[in-house]
Amino acid sequence: MSGFDFSLDATDGAARQGVFSTPHGDVPTPAFMPVGTQGTVKGLSMDEVSAVGARMVLANTYHLYLRPGHELVRSLGGLHAFMRWDGPILTDSGGFQVFSLAQIREVRDDGVIFQSHVDGSRHTFTPESVMEVQRALGADVIMAFDECPPGGADHAAALAANERTLRWLERCRRRFDSLEEEGSYPVQALFPVLQGNVYDDLRRDHVHQVRDIGEWTGYGIGGLSVGEAKGDMWRTLELLDGEIPPDRPRYLMGVGYPDDLLEAVARGCDLFDCVAPTRNARHGTAWTREEGQVNLKAARFREDTRPVDPACDCLTCARYDRAYLRHLVVAGEWLALRLLSIHNLRFLVGLVEQARCRIADGSFHAWRGDWLERYRGAGA
Amino acid sequence: MSGFDFSLDATDGAARQGVFSTPHGDVPTPAFMPVGTQGTVKGLSMDEVSAVGARMVLANTYHLYLRPGHELVRSLGGLHAFMRWDGPILTDSGGFQVFSLAQIREVRDDGVIFQSHVDGSRHTFTPESVMEVQRALGADVIMAFDECPPGGADHAAALAANERTLRWLERCRRRFDSLEEEGSYPVQALFPVLQGNVYDDLRRDHVHQVRDIGEWTGYGIGGLSVGEAKGDMWRTLELLDGEIPPDRPRYLMGVGYPDDLLEAVARGCDLFDCVAPTRNARHGTAWTREEGQVNLKAARFREDTRPVDPACDCLTCARYDRAYLRHLVVAGEWLALRLLSIHNLRFLVGLVEQARCRIADGSFHAWRGDWLERYRGAGA
Repeated sequence: MSGFDFSLDATDGAARQGVFSTPHGDVPTPAFMPVGTQGTVKGLSMDEVSAVGARMVLANTYHLYLRPGHELVRSLGGLHAFMRWDGPILTDSGGFQVFSLAQIREVRDDGVIFQSHVDGSRHTFTPESVMEVQRALGADVIMAFDECPPGGADHAAALAANERTLRWLERCRRRFDSLEEEGSYPVQALFPVLQGNVYDDLRRDHVHQVRDIGEWTGYGIGGLSVGEAKGDMWRTLELLDGEIPPDRPRYLMGVGYPDDLLEAVARGCDLFDCVAPTRNARHGTAWTREEGQVNLKAARFREDTRPVDPACDCLTCARYDRAYLRHLVVAGEWLALRLLSIHNLRFLVGLVEQARCRIADGSFHAWRGDWLERYRGAGA
Repeated sequence: MSGFDFSLDATDGAARQGVFSTPHGDVPTPAFMPVGTQGTVKGLSMDEVSAVGARMVLANTYHLYLRPGHELVRSLGGLHAFMRWDGPILTDSGGFQVFSLAQIREVRDDGVIFQSHVDGSRHTFTPESVMEVQRALGADVIMAFDECPPGGADHAAALAANERTLRWLERCRRRFDSLEEEGSYPVQALFPVLQGNVYDDLRRDHVHQVRDIGEWTGYGIGGLSVGEAKGDMWRTLELLDGEIPPDRPRYLMGVGYPDDLLEAVARGCDLFDCVAPTRNARHGTAWTREEGQVNLKAARFREDTRPVDPACDCLTCARYDRAYLRHLVVAGEWLALRLLSIHNLRFLVGLVEQARCRIADGSFHAWRGDWLERYRGAGA
C-alpha cells in the first residue's frame, strides 16, 4: 500500500467512518466522487467541484483512451495536470463502457474487440492494455478490467463472467506489478472489481478467489445498480460486508442517488460515484431535503422565490431562486445545467459529510431512518 | 436626463473617451456590453461577466417577453434582481428579433403581428406595448421600437422604413413620458434608433427628424452590420459623427468583432454589443492578439501547452492551455463554451479598455493602426 493508507476511525453497526489516504491527499470516507467522464465534470470548473466539498473525482478510461488518447494525456503531464485537479483521481477500467456504449465485435478470453462510439474505429482492450492505458492517464486508483454481465443474467452466465473476471484480474495484477517495477511514477493502487451478480454463492466465492490472488489496497464492488431489485442489492452488500477485509476501502461503483447512498453507507461502503447529479441537472431535476426530487420545469415554481433547497449551503441556493432556475431550465440555458449540477453535487457530498458525523457519534442509523422517511415521503 | 449623465473626458480625432452614468452605476466608455439574451450571458454566471471587466449588459426584450414574460420579471423584482446583475442594463426593443427570428404575420403602421419562434403563438408589438414591456423589465436604458429594413434595401424601402420608424418613435416617446408620469420607478432612459441604411441623405434627414422630436439621453445607431460593405458602415458612422450631439453617448447596435469595434471607436461610437464572443465560443473559436481568430478544433493545438492568448489576463488564459481546451471543444464539453466565452469577452472588454487609455493620451490612432495590422495580418 505504498503511498496509500486507510484508517477506520469509527463504526456504527456496519457503517464506517474513516480516511483513505492517497498520493494526492486524504479522502474522508464515506465519500462521493463526482464523475469527470472526459476529463471534466460536465459544465463545472474544478474549482466548483472543490467548492462543493468533493475530495476525489472519477474519470473514464474508455472515453479518455478514445479522446484525446492516453498517450497525449501522459505527454501533457498526466490526468491531474490535464484536468486541473490536484486531488485524488480514480479511473475506471473502461470495461463497463465497452459493454454499454461501444459496439462489441467480439469478447474473448484474450480481451474485447469493440468499435468506438465516436467514429466507429476498431479497438482492443485486454487486461494488460487497460493497465497500460490507466498508467498513462496516471490516476491514483485504477480499476481492474472486468466483465460485468447485464442485470438479470442467469447463474451460469454470472459464473462464467466471474471466472473470466478472475482470470483477467490475475493478468491485470501481473501487468500492474511489472509496470510498477519499470518505473516508480505515478504511484498507483489497483482495485479489483467484485462480481457475482445477486447470487450469494457466486458473490462469496468471488471475494475469496480475489483475496487468494493477493493483498489489495481497496475493493471495487461491481455488478450492482444494473437493474436488480433494491432488496437484492442490500442483501449482497450485507454479505460482502462480512467478506471484504474491514481495513480496506470499499468502492460501490455507480451508486448513487441520495437514498441509495445512505442505504449503502449503512451496509459498510466507503466510496461512491454516479453521474446522476450532473445528468439530472441536465433534465432540470434537483434533490431537496424536504421535497425529495423535484423537477424545476414544473409550473408551480414559476414565481417561487425560495432557493432550490432552503437548507442547502451551496452557491446555487445562496444566490438563485427557483423562479430564475425554472426560467433557465425552460429556456434551455446552459447556466441551468451548471447551477443545478453544483446543487446536486453539494447535496450528495453534504449528505455523506453528515453521515460521517452521525457514524462518529453513533447516531447514524436513527438519523438515516428519519432522513429516508422524510425524503421518500416527500416524493410520494 | 434624470439619473443619467454623460461626461466626455477626452477625444482623439473622432474617438471619444468618457463616462456614461446610470442609476445602476457608471460605465466608462467606449464600452462593450455582453449580451444576456434570455436573462443570462450564455453559460456564464454574472460574477464571471463582472470579472471580465464588463460594466453594462444587454438583454433581449423579444425573448424575455415570450419567456418568462415581462410581468413575471416585474413581479420578481425586475431584470436586475432576476438575472443577478446590479449594474446597468440595456434592453433592445425586440424589433430586430421580431423581424429576424419570428414569423411575421403583418407589419402595419399600428404595429407588428408575429408568431413566437418558441411555440407559434400570435403576438402584437406596438410602439406603446414595447415601452410597457421594457418598463416592466426595468432596464436602465430602453430602446425605441423601430423598423430595420434588411441590408441591401433600396432607397425607397429605406425611406419608408425611416418614416415609419419616426412615427413609431413619436408614439414611443409619448408612451414613455406618460409611464414616467405614472410612477417614478424604475428610472429609465429611452434611446431612439437611427436608421437610413447606407443612404447618406436618409441618414442625415433621419438624425435631424429624430432630434426635432426632442432631447435624448443617448442615441442608438441601427441598420448597420446587416450585410452592407464595411466601407459603407465606416462612411455612415463618419457622417453620423457630425450629426449626433457630441454630449450624448452613441450606441452602435450589434457590433462587434474586435477589428470592427476599433474602427467604430475611431469614428466616435461609445457603446457596443454583439453575441459574437459567446457564439464564437460555441464553435470553438477564440480571438488572439498575435494569431487573429483561431479555431481550437485545429489539429495543430493538440499538444499546444500555451494559453489561448499568452498576452491575455483572463481566467481561462491564466489556468488552461490550448491542448485541454481543444480536447473540450472536440469532445463537445460545455466547459469549452464557458472558458472560451470568458476569454472572448475579456478580449473585447480589454480591447476597449486599451482604447480608452490610448484616447486619453492621444495615441489611439497610431495604436489602432498597429493593432489592426497585426490582427488582420495574422488571419491572412
